[in-house]
Amino acid sequence: MPQSEAPFRRVALIGLGLIGSSIGWAIKRAGLEIEFVGYARSAETRQTAQRLGFVDAVAESAAEAVQGADLVILCSPIGTYGALAAEIAPHLSAGATVSDVGSVKMAVVRDVGPLVPDGVEFVPAHPIAGTEHSGPEAGFAELFDNRWCILTPPPGANRQAVARLADFWRACGSDVDFMTPEHHDLVLAVTSHLPHLIAYNIVGTAADLETVTEQEVIKYSASGFRDFTRIAASDPTMWRDIFLNNREAVLEMLGRFTEDLAMLQRAIRWGDADALFDTFSRTRAIRRQIVEAGQDTDKPDFGRQQKNE
Amino acid sequence: MPQSEAPFRRVALIGLGLIGSSIGWAIKRAGLEIEFVGYARSAETRQTAQRLGFVDAVAESAAEAVQGADLVILCSPIGTYGALAAEIAPHLSAGATVSDVGSVKMAVVRDVGPLVPDGVEFVPAHPIAGTEHSGPEAGFAELFDNRWCILTPPPGANRQAVARLADFWRACGSDVDFMTPEHHDLVLAVTSHLPHLIAYNIVGTAADLETVTEQEVIKYSASGFRDFTRIAASDPTMWRDIFLNNREAVLEMLGRFTEDLAMLQRAIRWGDADALFDTFSRTRAIRRQIVEAGQDTDKPDFGRQQKNE
Repeated sequence: MPQSEAPFRRVALIGLGLIGSSIGWAIKRAGLEIEFVGYARSAETRQTAQRLGFVDAVAESAAEAVQGADLVILCSPIGTYGALAAEIAPHLSAGATVSDVGSVKMAVVRDVGPLVPDGVEFVPAHPIAGTEHSGPEAGFAELFDNRWCILTPPPGANRQAVARLADFWRACGSDVDFMTPEHHDLVLAVTSHLPHLIAYNIVGTAADLETVTEQEVIKYSASGFRDFTRIAASDPTMWRDIFLNNREAVLEMLGRFTEDLAMLQRAIRWGDADALFDTFSRTRAIRRQIVEAGQDTDKPDFGRQQKNE
Repeated sequence: MPQSEAPFRRVALIGLGLIGSSIGWAIKRAGLEIEFVGYARSAETRQTAQRLGFVDAVAESAAEAVQGADLVILCSPIGTYGALAAEIAPHLSAGATVSDVGSVKMAVVRDVGPLVPDGVEFVPAHPIAGTEHSGPEAGFAELFDNRWCILTPPPGANRQAVARLADFWRACGSDVDFMTPEHHDLVLAVTSHLPHLIAYNIVGTAADLETVTEQEVIKYSASGFRDFTRIAASDPTMWRDIFLNNREAVLEMLGRFTEDLAMLQRAIRWGDADALFDTFSRTRAIRRQIVEAGQDTDKPDFGRQQKNE
């Protein structure tokens, strides 16, 4: 794609962890001539970003980073957005677009929306991608390939700004989708937030036993437990902020999960073989559809262990 | 290893699914001259086994399969063991060893132990290995590599028989460990049975929502949910039998899990940021230890998506 087709000219990344660094690498891979200016709270992270080269320059403050940028992306934990928005607001260029990558969208609309000045567009976004690793060295250009990025433009958002942001995410490798912030937060509560909560919880439960040692849990984890430890190794600050900011939807999904679990518990206690079999039979079809939708590998065991054929 | 070192001469596999077929392939890979006779309830499975060649012969009944075998391994769902043991008991050779691969051990001692005739050894075993796929075509020689196989020999078990079974599993690629059946069932309740129950449950909860469609759950599953669908795609008959046969230990672990989850629920409801952060910070260390113990890959996202470097 020649330079003239780049949807933005200068992009400020506020936050230089897994997502920020992957955005930088993905756009470099796409060959778009976009200048990236990065800011991170930690001087060490800023230095690492500069050394690795996924940004063209680093700024000493968020306010400095956004100057002259036509796209600003907040890539830090959601809990920092309000203060960052207040800090950068006076320094945003007319016609610029402010966006983010947060896993919760209603809270972003609440915290950031009112602080965006007239003449600046506000288009929240959420790339559905990540790994259990965090920090500026965790990023890679392929992170967003074949993953969805959900945009939640407010009513009356500038269509051109929305289209340019969609083009930007497509250039990163994403497929782009649109939702209301309310619906986004419900969908993510069940597909992401509840699974992470359950995973964090079971790893904690397993570490607290008296009858089985932590070393035994680790040693025999290939029997199922290890699958949960991957997402339970995700960034704790990011996840604290997600649960604090999507409380209602998470509590609703958690209530349903707990009800269903009580039914399974009762089936085990009373030896209800049919109820167990029926529950366990429903779930293969969903796995197959996820694989068919290109959202997971069809290799056994996530392809961890290969047949040597 | 030359033929003289093969720990058994003729092995009967009762059940020809993922585990039975992988045993056959693993021993063929090891180059041991062991004759495998297989039996499965379904004629189609028997034909598939013969066509694929991981057994040397198939028998029309379990009784026929065990004749002349010096090792008999039950590889079918645990719920079938009692009836199978009663059927094969009169046909077992003097000096033979009866073993199994079940994920529960006290129930096997209870159901099979009393039926094993004098002069036949009984050494239950459990290879901690598997994938979400099942059936005779799912097996592969590498399944047991670097995975643990736990033997639970009864008090007074013949030492030589135990040592030969351990050698057999080492030839399959396993590391061998020893436990009491009671302790095995507690360890597996937390490392395997509870994780599977939770995974089955969350997939069911997600499929039952009115506000979020099943198609949305599938589409956005890369945000965490898909990790659970792998083990929730495991064989329903096998897992029904596990929960029916390890009730007490599973209910104990489930009770602890539910208590811990109630605490997290309360922290979310009341916005207790520190409690959430503390819980989410404990879990990375366990993940790291699992990777260091060689029980999972260190690649991000289980290596599903590779950096192209």
